[in-house]
This record gives sequence, structure tokens and C-alpha cells, in this order.
Amino acid sequence: MKIPVGILGATGSVGQKFIQLLTNHPWFEITFLGASERSTGKTYKNAVNWFMTEPVPKQIAEMTVGNCTPGADCRVVFSGLDAGVAGEIEENFARAEYIVLSNSRNHRFDPDVPLLIPEVNADHLELINRQTYGKGCIVTNPNCSTIGLVMAIKPMIDLFGIELLNVVTLQALSGAGYPGVASLDIIDNIVPYIGSEEEKIETEPLKILGRIENGSVKMLEMTISAQCNRVAVLDGHTECVSVKLKQPAIETEIITAWQEFTALPQKLNLPTAPKHPVYYYEQDNYPQPKLHRNVDKGMAVHVGRLRKDPIFDYKFIVISHNTVRGAAGCAILNAEMMLKKGYIPSC
Amino acid sequence: MKIPVGILGATGSVGQKFIQLLTNHPWFEITFLGASERSTGKTYKNAVNWFMTEPVPKQIAEMTVGNCTPGADCRVVFSGLDAGVAGEIEENFARAEYIVLSNSRNHRFDPDVPLLIPEVNADHLELINRQTYGKGCIVTNPNCSTIGLVMAIKPMIDLFGIELLNVVTLQALSGAGYPGVASLDIIDNIVPYIGSEEEKIETEPLKILGRIENGSVKMLEMTISAQCNRVAVLDGHTECVSVKLKQPAIETEIITAWQEFTALPQKLNLPTAPKHPVYYYEQDNYPQPKLHRNVDKGMAVHVGRLRKDPIFDYKFIVISHNTVRGAAGCAILNAEMMLKKGYIPSC
Amino acid sequence: MKIPVGILGATGSVGQKFIQLLTNHPWFEITFLGASERSTGKTYKNAVNWFMTEPVPKQIAEMTVGNCTPGADCRVVFSGLDAGVAGEIEENFARAEYIVLSNSRNHRFDPDVPLLIPEVNADHLELINRQTYGKGCIVTNPNCSTIGLVMAIKPMIDLFGIELLNVVTLQALSGAGYPGVASLDIIDNIVPYIGSEEEKIETEPLKILGRIENGSVKMLEMTISAQCNRVAVLDGHTECVSVKLKQPAIETEIITAWQEFTALPQKLNLPTAPKHPVYYYEQDNYPQPKLHRNVDKGMAVHVGRLRKDPIFDYKFIVISHNTVRGAAGCAILNAEMMLKKGYIPSC
Amino acid sequence: MKIPVGILGATGSVGQKFIQLLTNHPWFEITFLGASERSTGKTYKNAVNWFMTEPVPKQIAEMTVGNCTPGADCRVVFSGLDAGVAGEIEENFARAEYIVLSNSRNHRFDPDVPLLIPEVNADHLELINRQTYGKGCIVTNPNCSTIGLVMAIKPMIDLFGIELLNVVTLQALSGAGYPGVASLDIIDNIVPYIGSEEEKIETEPLKILGRIENGSVKMLEMTISAQCNRVAVLDGHTECVSVKLKQPAIETEIITAWQEFTALPQKLNLPTAPKHPVYYYEQDNYPQPKLHRNVDKGMAVHVGRLRKDPIFDYKFIVISHNTVRGAAGCAILNAEMMLKKGYIPSC
Repeated sequence: MKIPVGILGATGSVGQKFIQLLTNHPWFEITFLGASERSTGKTYKNAVNWFMTEPVPKQIAEMTVGNCTPGADCRVVFSGLDAGVAGEIEENFARAEYIVLSNSRNHRFDPDVPLLIPEVNADHLELINRQTYGKGCIVTNPNCSTIGLVMAIKPMIDLFGIELLNVVTLQALSGAGYPGVASLDIIDNIVPYIGSEEEKIETEPLKILGRIENGSVKMLEMTISAQCNRVAVLDGHTECVSVKLKQPAIETEIITAWQEFTALPQKLNLPTAPKHPVYYYEQDNYPQPKLHRNVDKGMAVHVGRLRKDPIFDYKFIVISHNTVRGAAGCAILNAEMMLKKGYIPSC
Repeated sequence: MKIPVGILGATGSVGQKFIQLLTNHPWFEITFLGASERSTGKTYKNAVNWFMTEPVPKQIAEMTVGNCTPGADCRVVFSGLDAGVAGEIEENFARAEYIVLSNSRNHRFDPDVPLLIPEVNADHLELINRQTYGKGCIVTNPNCSTIGLVMAIKPMIDLFGIELLNVVTLQALSGAGYPGVASLDIIDNIVPYIGSEEEKIETEPLKILGRIENGSVKMLEMTISAQCNRVAVLDGHTECVSVKLKQPAIETEIITAWQEFTALPQKLNLPTAPKHPVYYYEQDNYPQPKLHRNVDKGMAVHVGRLRKDPIFDYKFIVISHNTVRGAAGCAILNAEMMLKKGYIPSC
Repeated sequence: MKIPVGILGATGSVGQKFIQLLTNHPWFEITFLGASERSTGKTYKNAVNWFMTEPVPKQIAEMTVGNCTPGADCRVVFSGLDAGVAGEIEENFARAEYIVLSNSRNHRFDPDVPLLIPEVNADHLELINRQTYGKGCIVTNPNCSTIGLVMAIKPMIDLFGIELLNVVTLQALSGAGYPGVASLDIIDNIVPYIGSEEEKIETEPLKILGRIENGSVKMLEMTISAQCNRVAVLDGHTECVSVKLKQPAIETEIITAWQEFTALPQKLNLPTAPKHPVYYYEQDNYPQPKLHRNVDKGMAVHVGRLRKDPIFDYKFIVISHNTVRGAAGCAILNAEMMLKKGYIPSC
Repeated sequence: MKIPVGILGATGSVGQKFIQLLTNHPWFEITFLGASERSTGKTYKNAVNWFMTEPVPKQIAEMTVGNCTPGADCRVVFSGLDAGVAGEIEENFARAEYIVLSNSRNHRFDPDVPLLIPEVNADHLELINRQTYGKGCIVTNPNCSTIGLVMAIKPMIDLFGIELLNVVTLQALSGAGYPGVASLDIIDNIVPYIGSEEEKIETEPLKILGRIENGSVKMLEMTISAQCNRVAVLDGHTECVSVKLKQPAIETEIITAWQEFTALPQKLNLPTAPKHPVYYYEQDNYPQPKLHRNVDKGMAVHVGRLRKDPIFDYKFIVISHNTVRGAAGCAILNAEMMLKKGYIPSC
């Protein structure tokens, strides 16, 4: 018996990825698809402008799309809603005692809402106990660029600490949703700006990497500067990172820290967990989004080119799949962790 | 009467751009095309795999390609040769008393060779007097990423000084020459590595921005860290820059410095000089390579998104046309400056 | 004294191209910019999402956008309006005695409206006399794919006649307007369908190439089959054409026909006319959109790879700039022809 | 016990795909990697410029590359060699009694060599009996564009016959091998020419679809005209096909023929066989290379947009994965069929 789940914003970019990743999931089964009024009442295949690299799964194609109001026959919903509408709809579902796994930014900084990466801060799930939604709750995953970055620095933070972090991103098109970026704007071009993205990267890691003290998160002290660019890549964000450490480290120590990094999702053998959270590459021109974004079903983070930096201590490259590891896949892994820890009742 | 000039490496990427830019030049006229043995004796149109966005100029198409040994009927040669062969060939030409304007890296750090951007260090031309080639000489232009960067920071250096500079580049394909980057490697992808590019950006600005003292260049003291990426853009490098200034400056002072920046090429009204060396854009998502690379015939540098930086003082975007401003166009402007200053004899 | 002209749909894809091409036009001067209500009252630079490869012309950037109702201080308007609204608005302007040069499909098959390519059927302008708009009138240019195709076959039609024509198009993104095709839909992809495009190509040439008999157009008899694809090219449509001729012809006769083709716009030396309407290329892999679309300011048509066909008689490649020759540029050339022929009063 | 197999041309484009598809194959195991002298003696990961979308399989990465001379410890070799060298090397292997499955064009028209698509002409395998290589033999798969085309028309040929066929292709970059097409040549561009490709498409189907009579193939009588273009798609060829049938057919009959088409590989349940050889799509803008190339592990052929044609009888779109179905995957399916039919001895 699988646990029935619903998807809010099912026709959007993240919604499509939720569908792709939850099809054939061993624990969850999609029983509800919610979208905006434009789609309500249509079969999914008629409502959606599908652009994944595999066709719409057969059993999903013929499902009828509902609207995003509580009433769906499931207790767990994944939300890929646009931030413009996500805040209120997610609260409505939580109040109606649904467990809401949200990819939207609206509730990420609510003090009682976990901003969760299971490999990094699974203990933050205890914040849920402070929520006032009865059996319902809201759990969020971070911004797509933040997730890859935080997973890459987590082993460094643990062993050496980071004082200053500079990051320049080269972000994929799927991160802008659908239809998102016009082809006329990005073929043979760069757009050196992504609205409110830099702010997210500069703040979200501080909560994720913070410690729970007296039932609330104490933000990590670390200064982050981010510059974000949109590039003509379909999937997979590239991030050029420089860090000043709190304690000295030699290169092999850092590489070993990445290679040996493993965490609760790996120990629990969660179905969506990557085999290794972080892969390090020795080859000069690795990692690359096209080559590495799909490793471990798109859930791993890829690091390369660690080298000394004349201003900071070290610089390196981070690549991760922005709609899998950086969005839908992370939300699903969050749900798997919640099930294992008892926050989602099993059937 | 125009001054006859030759092009070394005429079939390559930079060579093609030299041809495009020198066609209809008011002062210079191409009378010689040199390339490797594979091309020697062929008409240019049969020797070249032309990939500019305008066809081969008619008068050039039927010229016969010669080899890269002195003997050409001109006193000035522009070199777009690969670094693998440029060093020796350029010396041969200089020894044979040709004036060599080189885009290759080989002689850039020779103490008696100017590494020249006419808007920045025209006074470095006096280094030529120390060369021992008789009437011949070698003058180099910097690496493509360096030129845009240095032009953008020159007004800041003059007014406020820069102590630390971090730059992450998103570099266009034409910078890799032809055939250069395979389409299979870059469509839907990023290559986060360009061989020896980071070293160039971290060192060349120090010579360009250095002062002549006792007939040789005293390097500027400034620490630069560079990370370089290849992206799916045909022309136009994008650079994400962060700077720590030596003296405090407010944003409007910096923007004004850019807007008011003008230099000798503008004053002398050199034919290839941009109207303004630097353009600043207020719009959030500007500048962009596709939109701005061709402004002022590709010779201007474009800056945008100046904002405070939590680690450094300021961060901003720089865009410039890498094969025009960053290569062939700069070499031609160097020649124009040399003509005006008497280093190239007029007809 | 230039003739004041207005642009309807000034913020759209074709509207932007009108602005680019009319800036510095020797005979016309833009005095009015009309767009939808969303833009009305804004300065042009704030209303538009500009994506041309040159920045917005300065004098245009600060103009205030008006709405698309008669009242503009000019007698000539160029319309780049969407077909959804173009029909009625253009009639309103014609009734208010404006001369309307339309790029939209709405009136193309009106019996008294010329479907005009000045090199092909300038004599169709006499249809205007049958219009009932007083001093106003409507003149249309054909669909972008049609124009390149018809110019390429015009010399063949004249000399040998064409019975059957099969064409498969690879059409550029700018043909879909802005924002048009989503980048997620076309990078690393083909969309083998363009709504109602095949119908246009199969019918428009028959009117353009028809003869005026008793004041109306007698359609040419020729059977056309078209298949249309959208490809990841910014500008420039490629068409793979096969033809069965009415009379036998050898290859050199056809090539000569193309090379010698010239027409009234060339004889009158109209400012926007290409030097040669058709260029033929001997090189196997020519023409190509990136290389040839801008020749003669984007107004020429490029043909190559003429070879015998085992089913038809001949096959060949046609390339033309879809928003210049195939849209805005053609409309402007239409206006120039109308001025020379007295259909537009000079100042 | 798996059957040991070798790969000739293991570092090339098709060689990489062979490795990707044979990793974890239930019947075959790679025990030998052969390449040119440049690679011999290196580990595979150091010899190859890998560009698949999954990393090099671990067990392959550390294998040492050998040269392409008989001596490998296996009886079956898959050849992805360039045509420039394939002819002789493949004969050498066959003479040394290897079973050679070749993707190269060299032996495709040898009268005793099957040009094999298992769904279409498995009976042609009997040609092997006429070969004089002892236990060795050569079996070829057709050109990438031919395979998709022939699979799509096979059900039509069987039921209605085809008299004339016109095809225009939009071919993916991976078909040109590696490094293949330069990015500067294809981004924002089309190359309307692929050397000797049109000839292959116009002739290979006639052999594949021919009948064995008296031990040799009698070519099918059908006239084919092909025009080939290279487009900026990584994988997946698109073909625009028009056909004149020998017997009348209505649209639903043709669609049913495609939907019900199944063949020996499906009946034998061969591991690499697609579930359905041909999929038909009702949606106007389907199929598309990015969306459908990977269906059934890249081994199916996708057809859409069947509609009446004013010159021929019908036109439609065909899409298939050029390096899987159109190259390495087809060769592997050929081997599976040969094993089942006893042409390859099982262990």
C-alpha cells in the first residue's frame, strides 16, 4: 500500500518534475493533481505544456486536474506553486491538516518552518512541533542554487568553518519555470540578473546551517556574496565558489571531507537519496552540467577544480541538477525523511 | 595612399576578424595574407573556413595566401597566430624590421614589449625604444578577458585605487579559435575551465596598469583572483567583478567615473576608437553580450549592476566583444595610435 | 524634409525591427509609436522588452508610446500588429485616410489589397485604385517564408515555369514574435509544426505571382506543398525546395537566371533595395543563415546547392532574413516603391 | 556467463555510445577496447574525450585501450570506426574469424553483407552464408537517417507500397562524430549540407527493403530524393517525409499500420528491442527530438503529423535517436538477433 500524495502547481515546471520523479516511487503514489483555474477539469495531458525529456507517464496523462483547494483524497501534498500564490494556498492546506512539502519561498523564513536539506539539517524537523496546524504542517526546501551550494560546503563547515563565501552562479533555464526565459533572450546570450536570487543565496544558507537552540534556529554567522546569471543550459546550475576558512586546511583534507561525506538519508537508504551526496572530480574541466547533472538520478552534488585562491583561501566549482536536487527531488527526499522519522504517518 | 599591412594567421579566428575590421579601413590596406603551409598557395576563399557573420570581402577572397616568413610587401603585420608558433615567427618579422602587432601571449611579458590598451597605457609605447629590432618592433595587446576588465576598472583605479579584485568570467566561443569548442561539448552545457586563462587575467592587468619607471614597467600592486568558464555564446565575454577599493567611494562617484571616462584614442579621434570607452547601464538585466557587444563597432566596454558587496566594497558586470575590443580591434587601435605617435611611418 | 511615419505594434518583434530599419532612413522619420494599452503612456524604453542586437536608438527610447487609434501626426503607418487585432485596427487607420503598410495576414487575400514584393509584382499596386478608403489604403507584404521562396523562384517562373513545388522550412525564432518560443522548448530541439504557416506558403505565392486581369489578380496555377519546422536559429529562414519545371532547363541556365535577376527596386535604386535580389553560392555548404542573412542589409535572398532531383527536376536551398526581407524590410521597400510611383505623396 | 565483446573505435562518438549501451547488457560483456595509436596503452578514461550525458562506467574507465588488430580475447566486435579506416580493419577481423557488427558504410553494399534492421529484414542474415571468412563475418547496420526512415515506412511498404519518397532531414550533431561540428558553425545557424548523406538515404533503403532471391538481394524499386541539413540538436534526427503510394490508403489505415507494427525482435523479446518499433502521435507539434528520442531506451521510431499532400499522397514527420536506434543500438540489436538465430555461438 503506497501513501497517496497530491501535487499543487502540477502543470508548472517543478510540478512536471514532481510527476516525473514520483512515478514508480516505492512509497508514494500520485492521486491528486492541482493547478490554476485555467487547467481545472481538463485531463492532465490537455492541461499541460509538457517539456520533460520523457513523455507524460500514462497513468498521469488521463487524470483530471483539480483546483488547489483542500479536499483532495490524500494527506500529503507537494507544492510547486508560484510564489505569487503559494503562501496562502499552502497555509490553507496546512490548516486543513495536510502535510505540505513546499518548493516555494513564501514560508522559508517562518521561524517554525524547517528549511530542509536532509543531508544537512534533518534535525530541524523538530521545528514542526511548534507549528499550530494540528496534524498538518509546512516543510520547505531551499532555493535551487542554495541547495547545491550548502551541500558542497557542509563538510567544510563541519571541519574547518567558513568565514566568507563568494559565489557566482550560471543558472539553467528550467529554474525560471515554464515558459520562463524566451529563446530570443538567451540563445547566443547571457542574462546577468535573476530577480531576488542573490538575496536568497546570501541568506538561506545561514538558516539551513544554523543550530536549533531552545526550539528555534540560531543563524550561522558567515558572510555570503552572490552574483547570479542565466545561461543557455536546460538543466543544472554551475556555481563558482570562493571561501575563506576559519581554520586552516590543506587541499587533500578538503577533498577527503567531500569524498567521505555521508549523512542520514544515505544511512537510512532513502529511495531518493543519492549514493554519495557529493562527488569530487580530479579532471580539470569537470564537473559539467550536461555530463554530471543526472548522476545518482540527479540527486548528487558535483565539485571540482579545488585550488588555492589569492584573495580567499580556496576556490572551486559546484554543479547540481536544479529541478531535481534543487527542487522536486529535495522535497521528495524531505518527505521520505519525514516518513522515516514519523512525521508522516505510514499507511 | 593607404599603408599596406599583412595578416599572419589569416585563416584563423582572429585572422578572420582582422580581415573583417581592416576592410574599408581609412588608413590601412591588406596586401598580404600569411597562414600555415596547409593554406599556402590557395586563394583565401579556398583556404579559409570562414565563419564571420558577413561573407568574405570580395577583394580578399581571391588573394593568394602566402606563408608566414618575412618578404611580404608591407612594413606592418597584424598577428593572430596560435601561441604555439607565434613567438618565433613574430620575432623573425621584427628582426626583418617589420612592425608586429601581436594578439598572441608569447611576448606579452617581455620587459621591452608594450602590453597595450590605447585608452589605458598609451605611454607604454616608449618601451619600444628599448627593443633591438632596428626599425622593427613588437607590440602586443592583452588577453581578451583582460582588456574588458582593465578598461572597466581603469577609472576606478585612477580615482579610488583597487586593492582586491575577484572576477568570474563567462567567455564566448570565438575566444577559443576555430574550430575551437566542439558543439557537442557546449550546447546545453558549461565548461568551467579554460587552460591558462585564469593566470593571464591575474597577471596581465598588473603590467598594463603599471607605471613606467626608469624605462621599464613597475607592476601595479593589486591582488586578482579569476575563475573562467566557457559558455554557449558566440561573441562577447561577460565578467562578474567584485572589488575592494583603496579609498572609499559612493556609487554615483563610480558611475560618473565610468560615464566621464575618455582617453587619448577618443581625443585623437582614431578611426577604430569607440565613441565612449565605457557605457554604464541602469537597467537591472543589462548589459548583455547579444545586445551590447556590437555597440561602437564592438570597441566599447559595457558595465552594469553596480551594487554594494558584503565581502568586497562593490560588485558589477562587465561585457565586451572578445574578438573585436578583446583582440583584433585592440591591435588595430594600437596600430592607429602608433601611427599618430610616429611609431609607424605614414606613407 | 522627411516623411513622418508611425509604427503600430511598436513594442513587438516586427515593431522593433521597423524601428531599427527606419532609424536613419533617408526618406522616412518615425514620429509615432503605437502599442497596446499595457504600453500606452510609457516611454518606449520602459514599454519594450528590446531584443535586437543593437540598443534602442536614442531618439526612440524617450518617445512616449500611444495607442493604436487614428490621430497620429503622420499619413503613413507601418503595422507589425498581431493578427488577432491587426485586421480591425488597420481598417480604422485606412478609413481615417492613412496609408497602411501591413505585415499581418488579415488583409492579404482581400481582392483589392496588393500582396506585394517590389521585385516581383510591383504592378499589383494598381489594385489600390479599387480600394474605397479615399486617400487611405492598405498594402500588405507576404508571410516571411513566402517572400524568400517567391523571390528565389521568380526568375525560374519567368523563364521556365514551375508546375510543382515542394518546400520544407527550417524557420528562425524571431518569426514567432516575442516572447514567442520558450527556450525550454527549442534548445536541443526541433518543433516540427508552426500553426497555419503551411497554408500560407501553399497559397500566398499564387496571388503574388498571379497576373492582373481586368483589375483583379488571376492566381498562378502551380501546386505547392509545404512542411514547416521551428529551429534554434535567431534570424534567417532556411527552405529546402524541389521544383518540377514546365519547360526543360539546364543547371547553368537556372543559375544565370538567378545571377542576372534584377527588378524595379534595383533600377530605381530604392534605399532599402538589395544590390542583388538573389545571390547564388557555389560552395557545397552555402548559404547559411548566420553567414548570409545580413548581406545587403538583410534584404537579399540566398540560393545554393542547385542539383538534379530524382522525383522533381531540381532541388536547392533558399535562405533569407525573416524579419528584414521577410517582414519589416519588405514593408519599408513597399513604401519606398509607393512613394516613387506616387501612391505616397512626398512632402 | 556473458559473451565477451570488443569495441573498435572505442573513443569515438559511436564507440562511446556502444560502451554506454553495453554496460549492464544481460548477454554481452565488454572485454576489449580498441582505438587508434594515439590512445593505445592509455586507460580508457585518459584516452577518451567523453561527452555522453552519464559519466564513463567505472569498470570501463580503468581498462587499457588496445589497438585495432585481431588478437582481442573475444569473438564478437562492434565497430564504430571512421569510414576512412573501417573497411580494412573490419576485414582483418572477419578474416581472423571475428564476428564484426559494423556501423561504418564501407561494406554496406557488399553483395554478401547484410544491411540489417532486425525489425525489417532479419531474413537478410542468410547472406552471411555466402561470406568467405570461415567462422567470421561482417554484418552492417544502415546510416542513421536511413534506419528511422525505413522503420517508419516499412508498414506502409508492406500494405500499400511506395512509389516515390521525398525526405528532408534535420540531423543532430552527434551524427557527425566527435569533435565533429564546431560550435561556431552551428549555434544560431543551419548547415544545409552533410557530405554523401543524401546518396546514402537515396540508396540504402532499396537494399534493406529488397527481397532475397537466389541468395542475393533484389533491390526494391522506389525513387527517393533526400535533402540533408545539420541543426543545433544534440541527439535525434527529424525527417520530413512525403510519399506517393502504389495503392490508395486512408489516413486511419496508415496510422493503424504504424500502431500495430511489430516484428521479430519484439516477438523474441530481445533485450535491446523497443516495446513498439513505431509510435504515432496525435498532437500537432509532436514528435520532437528532445521529448521522444529516449522512449524505449532510444530504440523506438516516432511518427506524427500524417496529413494529405497536394503533390504526393501523404506527408509526415519521423524522429529517431541517431546514435542509439540509428547506430550503436541497432548494431547491438543485430547481435542479439544473430545470437538468437545461431549466427553467434552462445557461451
